[in-house]
Amino acid sequence: MQKIVVYDTTLRDGAQQEGISFSLADKLKLVRRLDRFGVDFIEGGWPGSNPKDAEFFAAARGIDLDHAVLTAFGSTCRANVAAEYDTNLRMLLEAETPAIAIFGKSWDLHVFDVLRTTLDNNLRMIEQSVAFLRSHERRVIFDAEHFFDGYKADPEYALETLRAAERGGAEAVVLCDTNGGSLVSEVAEATRRVRQMTSLTVGIHCHNDSDLAVANSLVAVEQGATQVQGTINGYGERCGNANLCTIIPNLQLKMGYEVVSKESLAHLGEVARYVAELANFALPATMPYVGASAFAHKAGMHVNAMMKSERSFQHVEPDLVGNHKRILVSELSGRSNILRKAEEYGLASRLPEAALGTVLDSIKELESRGFAFEGAEGSVELMLLRALDDYQPAFELVDFLVLVERRRGRGLLAEATVKLQVNGETYLTAAEGEGPVNALDQAMRKALVPSYPQLANVSLSDFKVRILNESGGTAAITRVLIESTDGYRKWTTVGSSANIIEASWIALADSLEYALAKGMGLGHANGDGGEPAAEEA
Amino acid sequence: MQKIVVYDTTLRDGAQQEGISFSLADKLKLVRRLDRFGVDFIEGGWPGSNPKDAEFFAAARGIDLDHAVLTAFGSTCRANVAAEYDTNLRMLLEAETPAIAIFGKSWDLHVFDVLRTTLDNNLRMIEQSVAFLRSHERRVIFDAEHFFDGYKADPEYALETLRAAERGGAEAVVLCDTNGGSLVSEVAEATRRVRQMTSLTVGIHCHNDSDLAVANSLVAVEQGATQVQGTINGYGERCGNANLCTIIPNLQLKMGYEVVSKESLAHLGEVARYVAELANFALPATMPYVGASAFAHKAGMHVNAMMKSERSFQHVEPDLVGNHKRILVSELSGRSNILRKAEEYGLASRLPEAALGTVLDSIKELESRGFAFEGAEGSVELMLLRALDDYQPAFELVDFLVLVERRRGRGLLAEATVKLQVNGETYLTAAEGEGPVNALDQAMRKALVPSYPQLANVSLSDFKVRILNESGGTAAITRVLIESTDGYRKWTTVGSSANIIEASWIALADSLEYALAKGMGLGHANGDGGEPAAEEA
Repeated sequence: MQKIVVYDTTLRDGAQQEGISFSLADKLKLVRRLDRFGVDFIEGGWPGSNPKDAEFFAAARGIDLDHAVLTAFGSTCRANVAAEYDTNLRMLLEAETPAIAIFGKSWDLHVFDVLRTTLDNNLRMIEQSVAFLRSHERRVIFDAEHFFDGYKADPEYALETLRAAERGGAEAVVLCDTNGGSLVSEVAEATRRVRQMTSLTVGIHCHNDSDLAVANSLVAVEQGATQVQGTINGYGERCGNANLCTIIPNLQLKMGYEVVSKESLAHLGEVARYVAELANFALPATMPYVGASAFAHKAGMHVNAMMKSERSFQHVEPDLVGNHKRILVSELSGRSNILRKAEEYGLASRLPEAALGTVLDSIKELESRGFAFEGAEGSVELMLLRALDDYQPAFELVDFLVLVERRRGRGLLAEATVKLQVNGETYLTAAEGEGPVNALDQAMRKALVPSYPQLANVSLSDFKVRILNESGGTAAITRVLIESTDGYRKWTTVGSSANIIEASWIALADSLEYALAKGMGLGHANGDGGEPAAEEA
Repeated sequence: MQKIVVYDTTLRDGAQQEGISFSLADKLKLVRRLDRFGVDFIEGGWPGSNPKDAEFFAAARGIDLDHAVLTAFGSTCRANVAAEYDTNLRMLLEAETPAIAIFGKSWDLHVFDVLRTTLDNNLRMIEQSVAFLRSHERRVIFDAEHFFDGYKADPEYALETLRAAERGGAEAVVLCDTNGGSLVSEVAEATRRVRQMTSLTVGIHCHNDSDLAVANSLVAVEQGATQVQGTINGYGERCGNANLCTIIPNLQLKMGYEVVSKESLAHLGEVARYVAELANFALPATMPYVGASAFAHKAGMHVNAMMKSERSFQHVEPDLVGNHKRILVSELSGRSNILRKAEEYGLASRLPEAALGTVLDSIKELESRGFAFEGAEGSVELMLLRALDDYQPAFELVDFLVLVERRRGRGLLAEATVKLQVNGETYLTAAEGEGPVNALDQAMRKALVPSYPQLANVSLSDFKVRILNESGGTAAITRVLIESTDGYRKWTTVGSSANIIEASWIALADSLEYALAKGMGLGHANGDGGEPAAEEA
């Protein structure tokens, strides 16, 4: 099987996405995780453009990489200096990485309008810059910026820029669709031509402005490119870079290439979630292969067909990419969906006759009031548990009071008072918090931890709020989803109310009741529900 | 120019997306908006599968469509009945639409494992069902389910199913990649073969499980398909359907086909936002062509190059698709980004010498405390306004107190007390609300509306909450983004705090101060900032 080299630029191009700002600690964690996953190159940053990136390379030197080659990124020398006097190239050397990627112009428009120099001088800049870095024993990858636009405008000149990099001693030339505007047929034709022209490694670097970054990357491989550049989850400026989380399984499971090990591929979903957490983004549920909805079935007919034949509505086995099949529960569900859920939770045989119908009715009723159970499987399981004849909730909510006050010069105050019943006894507790939900959480824990010390190991890990009927303004129904974890497993519960505090209180109480019902917080072996928590580096 | 027919299935396949549930009123609004946009077919639902859909068709009969053909969707008759006795087909007729799309099996695996019938009977079911609907004077479109998987397994049989539809009198055969697992080269080859075989309209219907739905749709058109099925924003089960918002501009701006009018295309962004609002989803910022980040530039170097040549980092003119260029402001911004913003707001000439530096420093300082200004341009403009020598804020915040209480049997209470200064006078007001933010909002309005009656026209339209440091649990820093509108324009402001109420209070106060500074709520002509609000149907 032919090997395709993965060149990851999540830390550099990915960090250009609106809303992303990786800390130094995040970047070091990412390097370790990407190395373990098996990418071949990790582009760490642009030391000449950003002081944070120079700091990163200094810190990254201490990391022992098993497999990946750490790479610094920068541009060719400037138009009016010789390579050996160029500050940017000097800073690239100071990053002390085994490999360096430099980009140069392949589009005559950019040579004239952005660099404001001649076509010949641009070739000089490319060749000299590559040769200079080679003379310092660096592996050099040449990124031909705007290659496909350049190829459309003047194919011979675009190819000439690659030849200049080859003369300088580059080991790879990377064809960049920098504006993301190229079509599949254009990428195929230009890549074929380059493949015929050079014996160097040919790489492909696509952006997604035409929604074609993945297709363009794959077609370039079909035409002989053997290095694919991209980012985890497709992060990147504007519409993002080519998404390695979809390119890698396509290449490996469908096109017969070798990219990462089979074991690594089975952790793809985990890598996607891990990087999303560091980027501080939710992983889009619809992301192919790795998203929470990627193998989720909602339509009753599909669910029936899935029961007959798994292949019938699944293009690959979800296990192969670290994902799993889900049957969704919602107001459109029938009893068969609820039954499937009960089977999944191992509750089917213990449920009383009428329970399926009761649970379904109560899901419908709550959804009409703004709850959404599709994303809150902890709450669904809890409803099924509550339908068991012998179920005893670990506690009962009675009252709460929350107060938030800000007085000029006296800062902020958040206090909560909570009344709960645990095993027939009433606990009235009060606590301060950073905010009202935290104060509620603290007050509830104060009441519960004496009876259930394992709750000390349970914490809230995500908190999502969605306004449902926007025309309601600040009086609109608010849905709160709380994700909790005990470090090993995670689970999500839902609350809904026109009052964000009440919605949070419902989701919070469900989260703690779920934790107690399922043995969360008692150690790895004891929690028997939820999803695996994202792996730590 | 060759015309490509757009077949929209947002109401049917799009509604299968996890989290989407269109009300009847939503569906009727969507039909009107899609018709106005210029799609050729609107697939309204599956009357045989969902009672809500039958209700929809009854209501939709009253809508006068300018251009689009309303279409009902269903399956061929069942394996053991003749078409004229099939309930599902009867219900399709009862929908009283001019066109009907029925799907049938093209994959032998499905014929055997899901239908549990013979290959010949499946052909009978297809031909008879089409012929039956034709005999009731319906236009019939045949959706060949799993066509590409079927073609891989047994190409002759897959083609035979299309011939059966043709014999029955279908006007179009649609090749469906139902599992979304097909590669570009596979779709190209099979479509070419179908194009050679039939003179009927050939359609393409792709799902995005391999991240290739758009590429597969485009390559099918290159191979002779003239009808493209998809959904607005790519909504759909699992990873979604082919995204019409990216297919249409690709076909029309890059491939030379005629799809919708130039004027309609210039409203594409608006249509995308409108449908997202009805679906109750945020439009992903990174969505090609229509997302808020699609033409946003963050990297300093890109911003510089953009200033020299717009084409240099933009694949199409954003105006053509109803979008616009944005220069982002963040802690990585230089003075030149802030200056560009000031120019955009018309403030550049009025800013005092030192203001750019001061604003930049305060952005950096606030971002280090959890604010994020990239998505909150209302707050950025407000910071620039506040830096003007002659700026007078419309009011000043002094104190607030919020109380939320729930007592068993007595329901829920939310109250806020607010102290503000307006033109040197102090207002102390209290109000109840549905929740704490609503109570704050009400109390602030009570204090402000006597002096500024136009605030009655300003309302909160979206409210996003994000936990920044998940390890902080309920004590984590919370960022609140509030989007407000006066019906004509919308603007977004940001607040951040460990206390969700304080974060909301900051964003709320900024929103109202912005509204007053910019003349929002005084009628269409008077508000001079913000983004256009999404158009109503």
